[in-house]
Amino acid sequence: MFKKVLVANRGEIALHIIRTLKEMGIPSVSVYSKADKSSLHVQLADEAVCIGGNRPQESYLNMQNVLSAAIGTGCDAIHPGYGFLSENSQFAEMCEACGVTFIGPSSQVIAQMGDKSQAKTSMKAAAVPLIPGSDGPLKSLADAKIVAAKVGYPVMIKAVAGGGGKGIRFVDDESQLADSYAQAQLEAAGAFGNDQLYLEKIMLDVKHIEVQIFRDHFGNAVYFPERDCSMQRFKQKVIEETPSALLTPDERAELGAIALKAAEQINYENTGTVEFLMDQDHQFYFLEMNTRIQVEHPVTEMVTGVDLVREQILVAAGAPLSFDQAAVETRGFALECRLNAEDPDNNFAPSAGTVNYLYLPTGNLGVRIDTHLFSGYAISPFYDAMIGKLITWGATREIAIAKMHRVLNELIVSGIKTNAQFQQTLLEDPVFLSSQATTDYLTSLATD
Amino acid sequence: MFKKVLVANRGEIALHIIRTLKEMGIPSVSVYSKADKSSLHVQLADEAVCIGGNRPQESYLNMQNVLSAAIGTGCDAIHPGYGFLSENSQFAEMCEACGVTFIGPSSQVIAQMGDKSQAKTSMKAAAVPLIPGSDGPLKSLADAKIVAAKVGYPVMIKAVAGGGGKGIRFVDDESQLADSYAQAQLEAAGAFGNDQLYLEKIMLDVKHIEVQIFRDHFGNAVYFPERDCSMQRFKQKVIEETPSALLTPDERAELGAIALKAAEQINYENTGTVEFLMDQDHQFYFLEMNTRIQVEHPVTEMVTGVDLVREQILVAAGAPLSFDQAAVETRGFALECRLNAEDPDNNFAPSAGTVNYLYLPTGNLGVRIDTHLFSGYAISPFYDAMIGKLITWGATREIAIAKMHRVLNELIVSGIKTNAQFQQTLLEDPVFLSSQATTDYLTSLATD
Repeated sequence: MFKKVLVANRGEIALHIIRTLKEMGIPSVSVYSKADKSSLHVQLADEAVCIGGNRPQESYLNMQNVLSAAIGTGCDAIHPGYGFLSENSQFAEMCEACGVTFIGPSSQVIAQMGDKSQAKTSMKAAAVPLIPGSDGPLKSLADAKIVAAKVGYPVMIKAVAGGGGKGIRFVDDESQLADSYAQAQLEAAGAFGNDQLYLEKIMLDVKHIEVQIFRDHFGNAVYFPERDCSMQRFKQKVIEETPSALLTPDERAELGAIALKAAEQINYENTGTVEFLMDQDHQFYFLEMNTRIQVEHPVTEMVTGVDLVREQILVAAGAPLSFDQAAVETRGFALECRLNAEDPDNNFAPSAGTVNYLYLPTGNLGVRIDTHLFSGYAISPFYDAMIGKLITWGATREIAIAKMHRVLNELIVSGIKTNAQFQQTLLEDPVFLSSQATTDYLTSLATD
Repeated sequence: MFKKVLVANRGEIALHIIRTLKEMGIPSVSVYSKADKSSLHVQLADEAVCIGGNRPQESYLNMQNVLSAAIGTGCDAIHPGYGFLSENSQFAEMCEACGVTFIGPSSQVIAQMGDKSQAKTSMKAAAVPLIPGSDGPLKSLADAKIVAAKVGYPVMIKAVAGGGGKGIRFVDDESQLADSYAQAQLEAAGAFGNDQLYLEKIMLDVKHIEVQIFRDHFGNAVYFPERDCSMQRFKQKVIEETPSALLTPDERAELGAIALKAAEQINYENTGTVEFLMDQDHQFYFLEMNTRIQVEHPVTEMVTGVDLVREQILVAAGAPLSFDQAAVETRGFALECRLNAEDPDNNFAPSAGTVNYLYLPTGNLGVRIDTHLFSGYAISPFYDAMIGKLITWGATREIAIAKMHRVLNELIVSGIKTNAQFQQTLLEDPVFLSSQATTDYLTSLATD
């Protein structure tokens, strides 16, 4: 087992990892920016190292500083959490080069799944269904016409070398295709020195369904029940739940098998999540793979009883998976509401300030609150607005939702604005209640 | 379903019930003493009625006031929680007479199990193993000698009409029997006007093992995995856990069957707990039956996923049990540490005062904290010292204990003294860790 582990993150996920390390009897080291010096992750870890200034680039994204802190404190492993350096293949590679275990898949696998074009090629090889589109770069406008007609409008034209939204055109019907093609080609050439384009169908009325998998060094692999993360506001997940109320057990098993095939294809190690879009006919399309623990993993922990961060550490240390597929039993239903420091009445503007009174309604079966808040904590403006995650479990979806409603009602976070009241209204939304929300539902409410 | 339910209790159990009612969409009414006017159970309920002065006799034990509050607010049911009026058959009878549902068994069953002699007779009829002793009153000293020799010393001689410790003698060997018998007879005659005595073996080196059962109006019944509550300080439970690390699955099923037979014998309805003593040979002896929800029920909720208070309300309203024995699956292991406002360095003297800062470590899988505390709460000297329950769950006993250790380390309750540090030392005790603690273990530590 590891001698000492550095936690390369902040906020609730840093606490989650430090707490798990403590429960495993492994010493922990926190890193922190100047703004975070009074944070709980600094107070709870066995050691803490300041790694730079307030801006993420100066501290939590500063690979050299994080790695130096690990080596300087004698850590033999780094847990990256989510965000920051967790999907940075260069950082994983630096860790590997220094003999420090990066708790996650290999740098090569991170790179492979981070490059969307490479990821698609790998997934195609594993027979994972892809979003319909061109098979690689388009040869010509005529080619584009044929592909678009085949997959059906609307479609999206994208620069192969693209990024940052450049060289993208949305095309509603064939009459717009020639112009869009020409514009995108010009823009791509100008921005990337490469005018190659590819085409993808725009998936409408789809749900975001994802499958977390776990795979060890010996090829043992399991999948967990799917999560429905369709409640998104401008691509930002707001409510996540598991299992989906819409899938049959057969569909669940099929989707799990697809996710495991994807992981096997790239010889994936540790935990990761294969994200899919699901259309109204319950057809699935590969969206991307997250090669790290995700924000929404607690709902899976609640229904399966599997401690995912603990398992990450064990598997990274070379242990075989501590359970097999048959042992992954789903009990009841769980959902998570992300608690953000933001003002829903002011276009969800971030809200910094001091939490001068905190009340967390912790009692009763099936309530879990993961947060780095405490009474007196000052929320810094430098980081993500998420200040906690409320997770409830119930024997049924209805009970879990009723419980969440109650918890949100009792919660007190005074001194700042939060989205707690907004979450309450979502829990009463008939489209959410009927499990029919698609990925653009919440955003469409916001822009109506 | 009930129109409105009065919660005849205070503290964490009142919150547990109110929260469950909210999750079920049932309006709730709190009752409170003057001392409790700023308590959470008053703030969270839909309505609250002051029922009298600070001393329990003036308020929470004042049957007339509690029942009047229920009738005055239009409640059709009362949940008594534990303690206070929960095992008062007269109160249950008053509720029945007024057409208000007492959420628990009938007044007749409460009376039957509350009378230890009647309880033993009923249990004998159900073939539930009893503590060896005389079969009813002793006929003479000669009879006492025969029975004592048969069951083995040490034995206890008790007044049949006894109570309050009067007319009890502990007898180590036969040489003491004649004197003890004479003294007890004299004392019993003087105290109760009845000199009848009975004799019971004193059970040494035993564990406290209890089985919670649930039985509905239709005779459907289930038992839950046993709880080991042997960590007691002067008969007061300190740590409770489930399932016992010592029982085999066969022993568990046998014990469950005995508990169900006991419940069937008295036509028990709702939930209750049959308490046993278990000797070193894993023989069980009936101790008593608690005809109410118990303090330690959350550990059972954690391993089975059954919401016991919710089920109490459903079954009391006439619904059949919502699950059967096959559905009661045990996952992992849970333990509970009672958090008391008391000073272990000053002979566990109660500690009143204001909690000026509270930090509850709520994160991670398998942590539950049931408490009525909040930052700024003033602990009143009029009530029980218990201010909360820390419950942890893990895939194994070792993990659950490690988690509890971490939670106790992070917990902050400043302004008063608590037994948190004392609980920490118990979690490191080798006798506790090996599951070998008997009911007198903790007390013997205290008196050594």
